[in-house]
Amino acid sequence: MPEEMYIPTYDDMLAAHERIKPHIRRTPVRVSDYLNELTGAQLFFKCENFQEPGAFKVRGAANAVFGLDEAQAAKGVATHSSGNHASCLSYAAMLRGIPCNVVMPRTAPQAKKDTVRRYGGVITECEPSTSSREETFARVQAETGGDFVHPYNDPRVIAGQGTCSRELVEQVDGLDFVVAPIGGGGMISGTCLTLSTLAPETKVIAAEPEQADDAYRSFKAGHIIADDAPKTIADGLLVPLKDLTWHFVKNHVHEIYTASDAEIVDAMKLIWKHLRVVMEPSSAVPLATILKNPDAFSGQRVGIIITGGNVDLDKLPWN
Amino acid sequence: MPEEMYIPTYDDMLAAHERIKPHIRRTPVRVSDYLNELTGAQLFFKCENFQEPGAFKVRGAANAVFGLDEAQAAKGVATHSSGNHASCLSYAAMLRGIPCNVVMPRTAPQAKKDTVRRYGGVITECEPSTSSREETFARVQAETGGDFVHPYNDPRVIAGQGTCSRELVEQVDGLDFVVAPIGGGGMISGTCLTLSTLAPETKVIAAEPEQADDAYRSFKAGHIIADDAPKTIADGLLVPLKDLTWHFVKNHVHEIYTASDAEIVDAMKLIWKHLRVVMEPSSAVPLATILKNPDAFSGQRVGIIITGGNVDLDKLPWN
Repeated sequence: MPEEMYIPTYDDMLAAHERIKPHIRRTPVRVSDYLNELTGAQLFFKCENFQEPGAFKVRGAANAVFGLDEAQAAKGVATHSSGNHASCLSYAAMLRGIPCNVVMPRTAPQAKKDTVRRYGGVITECEPSTSSREETFARVQAETGGDFVHPYNDPRVIAGQGTCSRELVEQVDGLDFVVAPIGGGGMISGTCLTLSTLAPETKVIAAEPEQADDAYRSFKAGHIIADDAPKTIADGLLVPLKDLTWHFVKNHVHEIYTASDAEIVDAMKLIWKHLRVVMEPSSAVPLATILKNPDAFSGQRVGIIITGGNVDLDKLPWN
Repeated sequence: MPEEMYIPTYDDMLAAHERIKPHIRRTPVRVSDYLNELTGAQLFFKCENFQEPGAFKVRGAANAVFGLDEAQAAKGVATHSSGNHASCLSYAAMLRGIPCNVVMPRTAPQAKKDTVRRYGGVITECEPSTSSREETFARVQAETGGDFVHPYNDPRVIAGQGTCSRELVEQVDGLDFVVAPIGGGGMISGTCLTLSTLAPETKVIAAEPEQADDAYRSFKAGHIIADDAPKTIADGLLVPLKDLTWHFVKNHVHEIYTASDAEIVDAMKLIWKHLRVVMEPSSAVPLATILKNPDAFSGQRVGIIITGGNVDLDKLPWN
């Protein structure tokens, strides 16, 4: 991220879409008569779990990677992440044929490490602490010269994530709401960026786990509140807002709703049963909040972003 | 089925498509770079597991149900099945608001019974034997006057299933092959019916479990061979060919390939991992046979029909 906060614009999102179109999928939108009846709303599920690396984060990652000039590209990219951003950035770098260095706690699940390596990412392990991560990352970046692509607090990443809701409004007319999960706020920020110009009448709702509700409390307090070490089954949503995503949340988000872990698991089961989509717990938070706030959504046309599908089938949260 | 064998035509398929379009989904086609690399082919997965009741069989069922005249519709439909045909026929009858009677062995899984009942189907249980089933079904049909919709040996059902490959060739250009699983042969027959007119250069391949390879042996012998009681993990593919489906298999199928249960489970895992689609073991047989016969498919454009997604997540075959 540049020293001075650069707020990405609608034109940045359009440029991102042109740049990444050859490298991402235009994911399908799915509906379920049963879930519509259950909620009294018309729900349209945008299935980003069907991106090649299994998550929407490939959009922002590809925008950053394919926007680099040749000199920087030769040195590649670098990030710290133990989640979908690490694998999506590795995937995008592999497509361009440039190096990707990832700093990851040595305690991260083996499956996550395997995925990054499958896409050619080079992992440097750190201790599971903020100080170790920062120290290790600074060293890796100094050694490689890789361009730092933050998982969400980066204008290129936010512009890339914004391409998802552009597709969604092309695929579905007259949405009253778009609901997406919120962790660090990259997807929500991109959604705000796009819809505030393209469909200003469509309200953006963020959905958050009760047990990691720092965005909800920030939204109500009017300033960023970061939790120390939140714990929720929706483990993609643990990270706090940062200045750039807070800008979008503060100015464009209509409301933030929360749901308990038990409600999130119930929503996962319903989506499997009626949409036949298995996804990460994080992706079930929107439906969980819709079921919890029926009056807010009844009779409305609601887009829902299913953010990712990287879950271990053998360790589903109801087993 | 009429007394005299009526072979459905291409026009029947077109009429079926017009009739059922409001009641079915135009399912998405998915691709995976990884699976393409693994097979050396270009694979296009048509996801019929994303039909509302979770299987392609809603196409044939809806064609039969919505083609009834008012007098017959008042008496409803009837069938014997413990699988997707039972739930899809119940679903289609529910959409039209007419009765659906299903004869099912009392030993059928509770989940299957629940699904039929959720769609308003009325179950009459029989003993798990052919004689009990036939006797019970004759009684139910006499009592209700329901029109018998056979799971596959019915021209209306075959014409309905044929609409799937019509969509597929609209969605994907220049297919060299379409591969679908074969049990009784309803989907394969519909695929032959459509492609022999619409894309005669596209070869139809049937994929069958080794442990229920009666279609393969019939195809090689030149006459129908029915197994006594085959056992395979691909439990949607246990039933034998009948005269109508044999007509299409004999005249239009290019080749039948088989795969072992272990290979089928491996293919299920691969499709989950790289397409993030969980499906019935039956639906994994095509990929299993493609992996087993790389020379036949390398460099080719191959459509694959994922026939259904009704599987118990808590009882996956590798747990």
